[in-house]
Amino acid sequence: MSSSPDISAVRSYFLALQDSICSALELEDGGSRFHEDTWTRPDQSGGGRTRILSEGAVFEKAGVAFSHVRGTQLPPSATAHRPELAGRPWEALGVSLVLHPRNPYAPTSHANVRFFHAAASSIENPKSKIETPIWWFGGGFDLTPYYGFEDDAIHWHRIARDAVSPFGETLYPRFKKNCDDYFFLKHRNEPRGIGGLFFDDFNELGFENSFALVRAVGDAFLPAYRPIVARRKNTSFTDRERQFQLYRRGRYVEFNLVWDRGTLFGLQSGGRTESILMSLPPLVRWDYDWHPAPNSPESRLYEIFLKPRDWLAP
Amino acid sequence: MSSSPDISAVRSYFLALQDSICSALELEDGGSRFHEDTWTRPDQSGGGRTRILSEGAVFEKAGVAFSHVRGTQLPPSATAHRPELAGRPWEALGVSLVLHPRNPYAPTSHANVRFFHAAASSIENPKSKIETPIWWFGGGFDLTPYYGFEDDAIHWHRIARDAVSPFGETLYPRFKKNCDDYFFLKHRNEPRGIGGLFFDDFNELGFENSFALVRAVGDAFLPAYRPIVARRKNTSFTDRERQFQLYRRGRYVEFNLVWDRGTLFGLQSGGRTESILMSLPPLVRWDYDWHPAPNSPESRLYEIFLKPRDWLAP
Repeated sequence: MSSSPDISAVRSYFLALQDSICSALELEDGGSRFHEDTWTRPDQSGGGRTRILSEGAVFEKAGVAFSHVRGTQLPPSATAHRPELAGRPWEALGVSLVLHPRNPYAPTSHANVRFFHAAASSIENPKSKIETPIWWFGGGFDLTPYYGFEDDAIHWHRIARDAVSPFGETLYPRFKKNCDDYFFLKHRNEPRGIGGLFFDDFNELGFENSFALVRAVGDAFLPAYRPIVARRKNTSFTDRERQFQLYRRGRYVEFNLVWDRGTLFGLQSGGRTESILMSLPPLVRWDYDWHPAPNSPESRLYEIFLKPRDWLAP
Repeated sequence: MSSSPDISAVRSYFLALQDSICSALELEDGGSRFHEDTWTRPDQSGGGRTRILSEGAVFEKAGVAFSHVRGTQLPPSATAHRPELAGRPWEALGVSLVLHPRNPYAPTSHANVRFFHAAASSIENPKSKIETPIWWFGGGFDLTPYYGFEDDAIHWHRIARDAVSPFGETLYPRFKKNCDDYFFLKHRNEPRGIGGLFFDDFNELGFENSFALVRAVGDAFLPAYRPIVARRKNTSFTDRERQFQLYRRGRYVEFNLVWDRGTLFGLQSGGRTESILMSLPPLVRWDYDWHPAPNSPESRLYEIFLKPRDWLAP
């Protein structure tokens, strides 16, 4: 039995999540504060609040964005695979974050929770036979280390598993595999990082429990990430590690601009460019055909961490 | 009357063009030399020679690549708009270059010449009714300044016009407009630079004259670019200009990874990633929602140079 969706409860949770994550990151940083930009779409169809912390003591760049946009009719591109949605009023809201620490021993991280809702029947099309509203949640979080630590990877995946397991034993392996499959650079035959959780089109538990699952994922982000950044942020490093970090950040740019569906859809459909591209690292280098030296700390990243594996195997 | 295509003559010209451009750029640089990588595709279906000059005195990164690849059957993705090509043996060859000078007063430049040929009838499909081979040339060059100079823009476009005008008075305005339209970042509503020439699917003059046009474009690149880099390469600059250059290089990455058809097709179809991505700048920064101060040298770039205009208007 599917319970009916409560968009305002989702919105309230997302706004509160953005607040709590920003507060914790400011404490962890200790140097800089978030700067907030609120924006609205010109046609009164929604807006958002984008928060950026730049040149912090710990975070070279951190972006945590909330947005809530509405439309009176879904565009054809959004309904190619769901023709029953064409012409309906819809809303999409979510929180998305990307954190780029300065210290190469602290990993980059991404998290997202989102909700999509299309109304029961369109104003344009009142005789639509489908009367149930259509909605789903999506989200997850993933980690991109420059220098890998097995302890960090195990901690990250343990928190991920513990967040979703109460909702079903199959969810962690399913969402972990989704994450490994999605955050993959096909042109490099290389994962973006060590993965985590990724889900989309999720409504199978009914609204109440699906929403509870999304809250569990959103609430797990700080316990998953903060201890890792806390224990790596003061590790001493030299220009060698810094240059490797800048080089590896290139992979982040390549993934986001070439493969990430949300980024491409946003850029190609007139989304707010600066909010979409807040995910890009502050400073990046590309080196032609660079490879790490054999048996180096840099080659360990490729050999041990950039291979999908079960970090929680007994 | 269409003359018949001579692929080996095209290949010889492209190889010689790569040589002459690399020699001239090494002289202009005076510090570093090109490093050559030759590569072959695993199935004996072609290869290339990619040449990179890194950390030069003038060029922070310069890539000049030749490639020549063949296939026994065009993939469906390449023939969606040309079903008559399906199943035919084909070849594609070209020279492509991107130059990223170190000095922010010297512009980045891109040039390309290419030739595509599909055989008269396929081995797989010997009864094909179409007996004429299908071929076309493509190419052009465009300029991306960080700090604009009207003299440079006029020189650049004058050389471009003079290269193609002997083949028809309409070609320069047509190819210039193609270039303005193609090298455009829709998500920024911003041209990549001041344009130049761009053409594709070009065979309307018959093989001999189309090839002569392509040689005229290839041969015009050095006279167009070299005087500009020569007069800007020693301009003194401070960290302010350097940071603006790194920021603007982000636009180059955004264009190449989000919009450039050749890059996307190459990455998504299993091309040689390092040769495709040699176009990316060596060092790049992204700043959230950055805007130049009014009436600054940086705002002049946007106001005067990043607007399509007729640089040769009397």
